[in-house]
Amino acid sequence: MGNTVLIYSRFPKTMMARIAERFELIDSEGRPPRDAFGADQLGDVRAIITAGGERLGAEAMDAMPGLGAIICYGTGYDGVDRAAAAARNIAIGHSPAANAAAVADLAMTLLLALIRRLLPADAYVRNGGWAAGKASPRAVPPLALTGRRVGVYGMGEIGKKIAARVSSFETEVGYHSRPRHEVPYAYHDSLEALVDWCDVLMIAVRAGADTHHIIDAAMLRRLGHSGVVINIARGSVIDQAALVAALQDHAIAGAGLDVFEVEPLVPDGLTALSNVVLTPHIGGHTAEAHIAMQDCVIENLTAFFAGRALRYPVG
Amino acid sequence: MGNTVLIYSRFPKTMMARIAERFELIDSEGRPPRDAFGADQLGDVRAIITAGGERLGAEAMDAMPGLGAIICYGTGYDGVDRAAAAARNIAIGHSPAANAAAVADLAMTLLLALIRRLLPADAYVRNGGWAAGKASPRAVPPLALTGRRVGVYGMGEIGKKIAARVSSFETEVGYHSRPRHEVPYAYHDSLEALVDWCDVLMIAVRAGADTHHIIDAAMLRRLGHSGVVINIARGSVIDQAALVAALQDHAIAGAGLDVFEVEPLVPDGLTALSNVVLTPHIGGHTAEAHIAMQDCVIENLTAFFAGRALRYPVG
Repeated sequence: MGNTVLIYSRFPKTMMARIAERFELIDSEGRPPRDAFGADQLGDVRAIITAGGERLGAEAMDAMPGLGAIICYGTGYDGVDRAAAAARNIAIGHSPAANAAAVADLAMTLLLALIRRLLPADAYVRNGGWAAGKASPRAVPPLALTGRRVGVYGMGEIGKKIAARVSSFETEVGYHSRPRHEVPYAYHDSLEALVDWCDVLMIAVRAGADTHHIIDAAMLRRLGHSGVVINIARGSVIDQAALVAALQDHAIAGAGLDVFEVEPLVPDGLTALSNVVLTPHIGGHTAEAHIAMQDCVIENLTAFFAGRALRYPVG
Repeated sequence: MGNTVLIYSRFPKTMMARIAERFELIDSEGRPPRDAFGADQLGDVRAIITAGGERLGAEAMDAMPGLGAIICYGTGYDGVDRAAAAARNIAIGHSPAANAAAVADLAMTLLLALIRRLLPADAYVRNGGWAAGKASPRAVPPLALTGRRVGVYGMGEIGKKIAARVSSFETEVGYHSRPRHEVPYAYHDSLEALVDWCDVLMIAVRAGADTHHIIDAAMLRRLGHSGVVINIARGSVIDQAALVAALQDHAIAGAGLDVFEVEPLVPDGLTALSNVVLTPHIGGHTAEAHIAMQDCVIENLTAFFAGRALRYPVG
């Protein structure tokens, strides 16, 4: 039996370079393992590296009979069928908190750009509208961030870092999460209560069956006409069709989205809107966060191949 | 003699609506007063409202022989010839701190959007590049903000608010300003020392003869290849031609600019660049900041017409 590590998701080669120095990698480049490799090669696979949000079920696991560890590159592991892995005695590891600062920074980037209408402002300068004295996107000034009520949904590492950042903008911060935390922000005992209270909803909750489409049409109506929603968690948390309708009808004021229901597909209904800011799932995408995530992968694989428990197991 | 207030700069009518309820306004819509009005009307003018960055010299003052007060809408008053006003016994007022939070927020918006490459990221999603799997602007991840050295140049109300905000992003913050302040950031006793030390330079200094083109080619070389500069103060602080050259040559990594040397003209050399984020002088442009600035104008004019000292005089 070999000691091969299969790259299950499609990752840029640069992200895997440091890991490739230490382990024997084969890269399926996002194809199903059986399409990419023969049974011999798959038989040598003892661990895989995957993007945690990508669907990984029993069938893929069974393609690699020697599989003992699923290592998620990043914090999330919502795509992994945990029951199927447990039934096969496959350990699951991830990179907790490694990218939390990067993701929280992107949440703030999306919020500020949305509120201050950065995209039309930059376009107005670049296309000469300002110089020509054309009708200005500045005609009606936007509401300030200062003084607004910001609701943070989820108070893990990312939620805490978002709350710390947005507090410094002289906002009022509240939160909801399943366990109550020792944090200096007002706790709301349901998501509904948080959404009723806040103007800005920052979604930082872990994705799963219990949060699937939890932000639906009714919740968006609660957020209200001047409300904005920022999602850097997972696309599955929001009913995307309901969100598009709410944005088109101005039931809410705007959205900043780094994640979508079926990535990389973003519906035309979203890309046509001017009251949204859209990024291609780059929340955890900084040089430093990648190094930290690679360190977690390397530590997890090192422990696994030494026969020890994973260094960062999914809890 | 009348009690007319002349609007000297070009302002949207909506910004003046609350002031017009209380005072008799005439609007030159940015034209020189003598072009816009006859001597009779100008003879009735006792106060003017101006954008502080706009040139206002002896000639304009002499067009209104009854002029007793120049009220700047906003914090800055660098366009006003203070010696000429003093020689004519004309008081100068402004709106100190009224827009500081809004300007600091925009500084953070520019910084985050620049560092996280928001404009190409949003374009990549909207133009279908992500869905089609095209060559990605994500290929090389950007440096994180966390851990960077941020130099704040100027520690007035806006500088303090920028420092408070950027500190929450787990950065190291230093500053330089002429007086040293009681703030929890490392003081650097010259601008050169600050620029040598920092990766991110946030310009929040008051404009004037002493700061004209103080950020020149040599200073930009000191900032270095990975350095970025954000300017929400005044365009005159930076030698704009030197900045364009430094950006084109990658002597620095990028710039976020809300202000320019000759507004609203932005040179093609800047608008053609991808390593800049450009906004049309909207730093103080939020609904709340406008109300606060209008309140200052109203309080200044009320005091003036009651024969009292201005409520917010330029110190």
